[in-house]
Amino acid sequence: MRKGIVHYETGEKIDGYLLIKSATKGLASNGKPFLTLMLGDHTGEVEAKLWDCNTEDETTFVGSVIIHVTGDIHDYRGKQQLKIKGIRPTTPMDHVKLADFLQCAPLAPEEMLEKITQYIFEMKNANIQRITRHLLKKHREAFIEVPAATKNHHEFVSGLAYHVVSMLDLAKALANLYPTLDTDLLYSGVILHDLGKVIELSGPVATTYTLEGKLLGHISIMVNEIGQVAKELGIDSEEVMILQHLVLSHHSKGEWGSPKAPLIREAEMLHMIDNIDAKMNMLDRTLERVKPGEFSEKVYAMDNRSFYKPTFQD
Amino acid sequence: MRKGIVHYETGEKIDGYLLIKSATKGLASNGKPFLTLMLGDHTGEVEAKLWDCNTEDETTFVGSVIIHVTGDIHDYRGKQQLKIKGIRPTTPMDHVKLADFLQCAPLAPEEMLEKITQYIFEMKNANIQRITRHLLKKHREAFIEVPAATKNHHEFVSGLAYHVVSMLDLAKALANLYPTLDTDLLYSGVILHDLGKVIELSGPVATTYTLEGKLLGHISIMVNEIGQVAKELGIDSEEVMILQHLVLSHHSKGEWGSPKAPLIREAEMLHMIDNIDAKMNMLDRTLERVKPGEFSEKVYAMDNRSFYKPTFQD
Amino acid sequence: MRKGIVHYETGEKIDGYLLIKSATKGLASNGKPFLTLMLGDHTGEVEAKLWDCNTEDETTFVGSVIIHVTGDIHDYRGKQQLKIKGIRPTTPMDHVKLADFLQCAPLAPEEMLEKITQYIFEMKNANIQRITRHLLKKHREAFIEVPAATKNHHEFVSGLAYHVVSMLDLAKALANLYPTLDTDLLYSGVILHDLGKVIELSGPVATTYTLEGKLLGHISIMVNEIGQVAKELGIDSEEVMILQHLVLSHHSKGEWGSPKAPLIREAEMLHMIDNIDAKMNMLDRTLERVKPGEFSEKVYAMDNRSFYKPTFQD
Amino acid sequence: MRKGIVHYETGEKIDGYLLIKSATKGLASNGKPFLTLMLGDHTGEVEAKLWDCNTEDETTFVGSVIIHVTGDIHDYRGKQQLKIKGIRPTTPMDHVKLADFLQCAPLAPEEMLEKITQYIFEMKNANIQRITRHLLKKHREAFIEVPAATKNHHEFVSGLAYHVVSMLDLAKALANLYPTLDTDLLYSGVILHDLGKVIELSGPVATTYTLEGKLLGHISIMVNEIGQVAKELGIDSEEVMILQHLVLSHHSKGEWGSPKAPLIREAEMLHMIDNIDAKMNMLDRTLERVKPGEFSEKVYAMDNRSFYKPTFQD
Amino acid sequence: MRKGIVHYETGEKIDGYLLIKSATKGLASNGKPFLTLMLGDHTGEVEAKLWDCNTEDETTFVGSVIIHVTGDIHDYRGKQQLKIKGIRPTTPMDHVKLADFLQCAPLAPEEMLEKITQYIFEMKNANIQRITRHLLKKHREAFIEVPAATKNHHEFVSGLAYHVVSMLDLAKALANLYPTLDTDLLYSGVILHDLGKVIELSGPVATTYTLEGKLLGHISIMVNEIGQVAKELGIDSEEVMILQHLVLSHHSKGEWGSPKAPLIREAEMLHMIDNIDAKMNMLDRTLERVKPGEFSEKVYAMDNRSFYKPTFQD
Amino acid sequence: MRKGIVHYETGEKIDGYLLIKSATKGLASNGKPFLTLMLGDHTGEVEAKLWDCNTEDETTFVGSVIIHVTGDIHDYRGKQQLKIKGIRPTTPMDHVKLADFLQCAPLAPEEMLEKITQYIFEMKNANIQRITRHLLKKHREAFIEVPAATKNHHEFVSGLAYHVVSMLDLAKALANLYPTLDTDLLYSGVILHDLGKVIELSGPVATTYTLEGKLLGHISIMVNEIGQVAKELGIDSEEVMILQHLVLSHHSKGEWGSPKAPLIREAEMLHMIDNIDAKMNMLDRTLERVKPGEFSEKVYAMDNRSFYKPTFQD
Repeated sequence: MRKGIVHYETGEKIDGYLLIKSATKGLASNGKPFLTLMLGDHTGEVEAKLWDCNTEDETTFVGSVIIHVTGDIHDYRGKQQLKIKGIRPTTPMDHVKLADFLQCAPLAPEEMLEKITQYIFEMKNANIQRITRHLLKKHREAFIEVPAATKNHHEFVSGLAYHVVSMLDLAKALANLYPTLDTDLLYSGVILHDLGKVIELSGPVATTYTLEGKLLGHISIMVNEIGQVAKELGIDSEEVMILQHLVLSHHSKGEWGSPKAPLIREAEMLHMIDNIDAKMNMLDRTLERVKPGEFSEKVYAMDNRSFYKPTFQD
Repeated sequence: MRKGIVHYETGEKIDGYLLIKSATKGLASNGKPFLTLMLGDHTGEVEAKLWDCNTEDETTFVGSVIIHVTGDIHDYRGKQQLKIKGIRPTTPMDHVKLADFLQCAPLAPEEMLEKITQYIFEMKNANIQRITRHLLKKHREAFIEVPAATKNHHEFVSGLAYHVVSMLDLAKALANLYPTLDTDLLYSGVILHDLGKVIELSGPVATTYTLEGKLLGHISIMVNEIGQVAKELGIDSEEVMILQHLVLSHHSKGEWGSPKAPLIREAEMLHMIDNIDAKMNMLDRTLERVKPGEFSEKVYAMDNRSFYKPTFQD
Repeated sequence: MRKGIVHYETGEKIDGYLLIKSATKGLASNGKPFLTLMLGDHTGEVEAKLWDCNTEDETTFVGSVIIHVTGDIHDYRGKQQLKIKGIRPTTPMDHVKLADFLQCAPLAPEEMLEKITQYIFEMKNANIQRITRHLLKKHREAFIEVPAATKNHHEFVSGLAYHVVSMLDLAKALANLYPTLDTDLLYSGVILHDLGKVIELSGPVATTYTLEGKLLGHISIMVNEIGQVAKELGIDSEEVMILQHLVLSHHSKGEWGSPKAPLIREAEMLHMIDNIDAKMNMLDRTLERVKPGEFSEKVYAMDNRSFYKPTFQD
Repeated sequence: MRKGIVHYETGEKIDGYLLIKSATKGLASNGKPFLTLMLGDHTGEVEAKLWDCNTEDETTFVGSVIIHVTGDIHDYRGKQQLKIKGIRPTTPMDHVKLADFLQCAPLAPEEMLEKITQYIFEMKNANIQRITRHLLKKHREAFIEVPAATKNHHEFVSGLAYHVVSMLDLAKALANLYPTLDTDLLYSGVILHDLGKVIELSGPVATTYTLEGKLLGHISIMVNEIGQVAKELGIDSEEVMILQHLVLSHHSKGEWGSPKAPLIREAEMLHMIDNIDAKMNMLDRTLERVKPGEFSEKVYAMDNRSFYKPTFQD
Repeated sequence: MRKGIVHYETGEKIDGYLLIKSATKGLASNGKPFLTLMLGDHTGEVEAKLWDCNTEDETTFVGSVIIHVTGDIHDYRGKQQLKIKGIRPTTPMDHVKLADFLQCAPLAPEEMLEKITQYIFEMKNANIQRITRHLLKKHREAFIEVPAATKNHHEFVSGLAYHVVSMLDLAKALANLYPTLDTDLLYSGVILHDLGKVIELSGPVATTYTLEGKLLGHISIMVNEIGQVAKELGIDSEEVMILQHLVLSHHSKGEWGSPKAPLIREAEMLHMIDNIDAKMNMLDRTLERVKPGEFSEKVYAMDNRSFYKPTFQD
Repeated sequence: MRKGIVHYETGEKIDGYLLIKSATKGLASNGKPFLTLMLGDHTGEVEAKLWDCNTEDETTFVGSVIIHVTGDIHDYRGKQQLKIKGIRPTTPMDHVKLADFLQCAPLAPEEMLEKITQYIFEMKNANIQRITRHLLKKHREAFIEVPAATKNHHEFVSGLAYHVVSMLDLAKALANLYPTLDTDLLYSGVILHDLGKVIELSGPVATTYTLEGKLLGHISIMVNEIGQVAKELGIDSEEVMILQHLVLSHHSKGEWGSPKAPLIREAEMLHMIDNIDAKMNMLDRTLERVKPGEFSEKVYAMDNRSFYKPTFQD
């Protein structure tokens, strides 16, 4: 299966390895159970149905298992669906490994870390720099792997790091155009704003919310972390509270999860930078497969709108 | 001025000492400045106008100053207003002291602390008990003085402590009727839910919001505090996160300031207990001065409703 | 079938009598009709599917029929489902009776009536007492049987009476803590607030809304009843209007069905007491089956939240 | 003062009799009390200020008093204002009577009653006819005097009757165009929909809300009345509930005061007829004084819009 | 198939010609594709399922194809459904033509055009008359065929014209009752308000939204058209802008698609006339099939309400 | 008066020329009229009160008049206010000219036009380029003078041009980071999005809304203009509709004035670019005068928030 799963056209046959990203049991209206499988590789994913499955199937074909599958691609209500003909779990004899089946950010982890480190290096305020560097170092392992979300945008391995790098570049461009912006605050805010997701989310594969994620949320988690790190570093100046405020307010409104609205110039801009990068990520991935003169699938996180690609664009 | 300021009737004369709780400069439409003073004693407060004031007046008559004043009580749009005839700041010769002019909770601080300590003593879960006791001890000084809010309900010296004591009694009554409720969580939630106000608010006199209060808010402040105290005490079990969740969710909805809705039985009840006690406090103070068969002033924090006292009540 | 239906575990076999609480026809995607049956006994209910049913089945297996059924319990999306193997309607030879299959309040009807009567006895205002007693007497038959709602909370035989008794106890506890509350109004408000449901709902089994329920609603129905009973009793004092107001405003807001917001102290508290008792009922039944460290099913009437039971609770 | 008060132009002098419709005490920023008087005659009203008033003035110049006044008309923020030069209460020697100073419906009470009676006469359903006739007869005295509201629309003597007559004509026109409409229900709904205002409002002069109006509202009041009258007349058929539903739902939504939305064809139309007539009344009175090519004052009850009169209209 | 499709009762057999109005592919839970067909004739439509369809079926049975079908009428969740036994596309040998299968307005196109022309003839303002006449003439072909909407109300051939004629009659009736209304503006507003739908919608059969409809909408389309036609006719007076405003504001609120709220008397009434006629159309078609004493299906565009037909109506 | 009006401190004396930007008549509570004047020069404006004015004053001191004034600067509720001691209108002898008293964009008109022209020059799509160039040329005179709004942001001479230039630079920076963006559409959208304000607003001095602005709004005005210009240029391709959609949707939501939400990638970004530039303009002007460690005045158009400047910023 040389080419990635997202490049198959309706009608093509599939014969190769795929990773089970999630498996949900259903009950057909004839009373027999079936499995809805999300199967993926490094290019994306496809939905598949395994009809008339037995109890063994239900315990064999679960999330994170790599399978060998044959079947063909159908069109179902404008979305592709894989009709499974044959399926089996892989064994060591298949010589496949998880890493090859994960969708990743377009940049390598080291490259992204280096870019972020460079931005931290450019900070002039020592307190902001130390807190930011310390927190990034503390959570580096998870940070470099975690997606930015479980769905909607940047929901792939290293998605958060990629989101942060894009936002940093955007922050720099904005600060060039609006010189009153404090780049120290802006860069630190970008790096820390979603860092709590390393605790809120379960990890890079088959991502779910942790208990702490559900009860406290990544915003409160990171506000606490900033407080504790500042204490450890012996920093007790206003910068601590301002960084906490940047994280606290980056969703902008109470009903979107921020207990305080942005009250600092850079907090307001942090929210908008976050918004632009998330939306561009969703728009790009949605319109990628759309032909000029056609409308896209509906984008749930953008008010369920369906976007149009003009005929004079390609 | 033997009797308290709230007991004066329209038309009566005043000659005595009062505390300036706030002073706001206005510009009369004849172009001359005047001061709107909120003057208070231990029973409540009255609005007064100082017309044609000069620059010296503006710097003399400010918040927290005790004055000697003569004048008489008018009725202005259904509210009493003091028309100032003479006013002077007090000197040590007047032998007046601040404490005598503050409105206080109906219970003495020691009595309230004792009641709260008793509730802590009844806790069975050692982790919850230690965290609660430690935090109360850490902030005891401020806790016993701070009002529960700058306005609307329990906005007097020791208002927060009084609110907590009432809520604890209510929590106990509820737990008697609904035995599934975990009193450890309920009592701890009650004691900690607004404790962040010792940092959010400036203090018991002429209360305003601190910078930390504006940028972080009492909810996030206390969630951080719980985390740090747990760390100091070496407690790393689920109780910590649950207590943080209780505080985090006690306003119930995002638009009311809680980044997470209650997801624990006791969190849901904590919100309701808080609500009942605040509303009863507002209703009691509002209806106190209303005669049977009449409507009260509008209560801002209760959708601006005007409440009726039936003729057969007294 | 000795043990109740709710105590069966996934995988267990069932062979016994159950009551059909509702039957809805469906069309399987193979074009064949099936029935979705809600089957219940005195402990609760379970969903079951009857596949490939014929026209005779559709007329045989309808609401309020007691059947004998064999099958086993499956797990379907986190909820139990009964897979029917054999099913037949019962005949007099089976010696089963409806009363044995209904879920009831934990207290006996007489006991509840006695408690309520005692509260009425304690009333000091003769007008309030007479109106309340008269209305309860008038609708006693239906009152003692009707559920408090068709779903969500207290939706079992005598559910309304049980809800009223709990609320009365809660009202008493509140009045102890807040002595300004008028217990006559509070008790009468509790007893009358949902009494209109005896006309709004069809009865204790397979409960639906009546025409009057749909066009007028239980609030307007009871406001009318109070007016008519007062007329019959020759009472023309303010108490009548106040009782009508208590019933009218107990949903608190226009969008929740109350044409007037509470304008009396006791009206405000009646709404809160109602709220607390309904929520505790939903929380208790939801968390009853949840193991420590797990989340419950989503509770529709509480913003679709899923509640957590801490690991240190049991 | 031959010509009506609304026909005076800015700059003109006034010397004549006017009725005080309301008097509100204010406190000038020089500390002296003043009265804001709404002065009216049969054509409308004008605001006036009485500066530097003394205590005697405050008790002399109150609502419902007829005064003799001299002064001139100013323009204040686009609205006319009467600047009082001389003012005195009238005595029997002035030979003025209240009736001459009230703004009335354009039709005489008898004429309106006759029209309404004719519509009742046309009803074919005896139950609907009897209930409607009985209720109109019972409240005829108040009905023929009461305004349709305290402000916004038809807020003049006999305003409700005039509103009802217009709505009846509109209902008839609609029923001609849409023959499925049941004119019995439509006519009865129109006549009864606001009849509760005879109890909700204090009367035709200086109209305020009564206690019953505040606690129950005209909708619930009339629903009760229909129930009681039906009982008196021994009518127990579905028509009673349908008429109650028409009144109950005529505000269309919970947040606008209707506990049930319209569920009958005629209920939906009743709401729209009410809406059209109220809006046309507001638009006509607002645009009456506007010159072509200009915008009107803002109309509070129509989302505060300011309406334009095209230059080609006159 | 003599009688129309909507007159078949459950259980009856069908053997005749029907038009496919839409065809949607589904995937049965046994993995096999099926088609959901909306089949219609001049009286209305019925849903049908074609199970186990193959690829040829999917390309044969598409929108706008006339088929011969046999089967019988079932009841599925309160709605009729046709169970297909045999189905084949028609050939010229069948001698059927599209026009016979379309649901049409109750009036003939010529008759409606004549009525509208008469209203234009009655206009007194030459500018308004010329613009209206010109636009109607320009789009006459499409206007006389297009439905008023793709669903909800007047969604049949010539639906828009029929809606316009009803609204004109209603406008005339209103202007009789409220003589301040400018009939020129009202008639022109009625004729033009939805005329943009000739461009927004694809046509009378299997109606969908065009690209221009999705990106600009019928309101902006028609505002542009008025501007261009006025230019062509050399009309540059205020009437042009007023007509544009009437069209622009006829949905009344921003969230309903109007960038400006009505600011002209006739604009406000145009919105209400539109509303009444659309609602009466929905109510009449919904209640047509409802028996006295029963509730209708839910009406999606009227807040999903289910309407009741009183027992004393027929 | 060498230094600009905004650089005066409280307590300083003023003796120089200022422009009356608006004059509103008030009535002091002593019954005497006064004028509230907004007086400005090229640096900004200050409020002033002219007490006890006579009729002559009212006609002399009106908008757009240049006056000579003496007085001193007071502080009133945290805002500066000029207390007028002497005031007279200027005569030709004063040798003052309007242009010197207007607040202008930081860039010269020619410079801005040149920048915009350069962006148009860079467009690759000839249709988009021609339409954009033509419209800019057509409205150049007004475009280069008009403010971007009557208040809130860029409300100075050439404010719109300055807003457009900033947005173009921001659009370029974004397109560098997100290469899928079509710069032709983005640049054209930026240049045209508010161009309708040249018709919606009255001009650069004492700006108000025109009749066309009130009835149609700048969005509909410009959508029409694009249509007409395209027709004149003989362009009939999809680009026309897309440009109309960009303008139509740039307020993003119906309740914010856009009848269609953005359905093109560049439309979504146009809205965000507009948002960022407007907010940065408001934040910069608001925080300009705020000292580190203090909060700003409330910003009405940003949810009335008061912004904080950290102590470590300057």
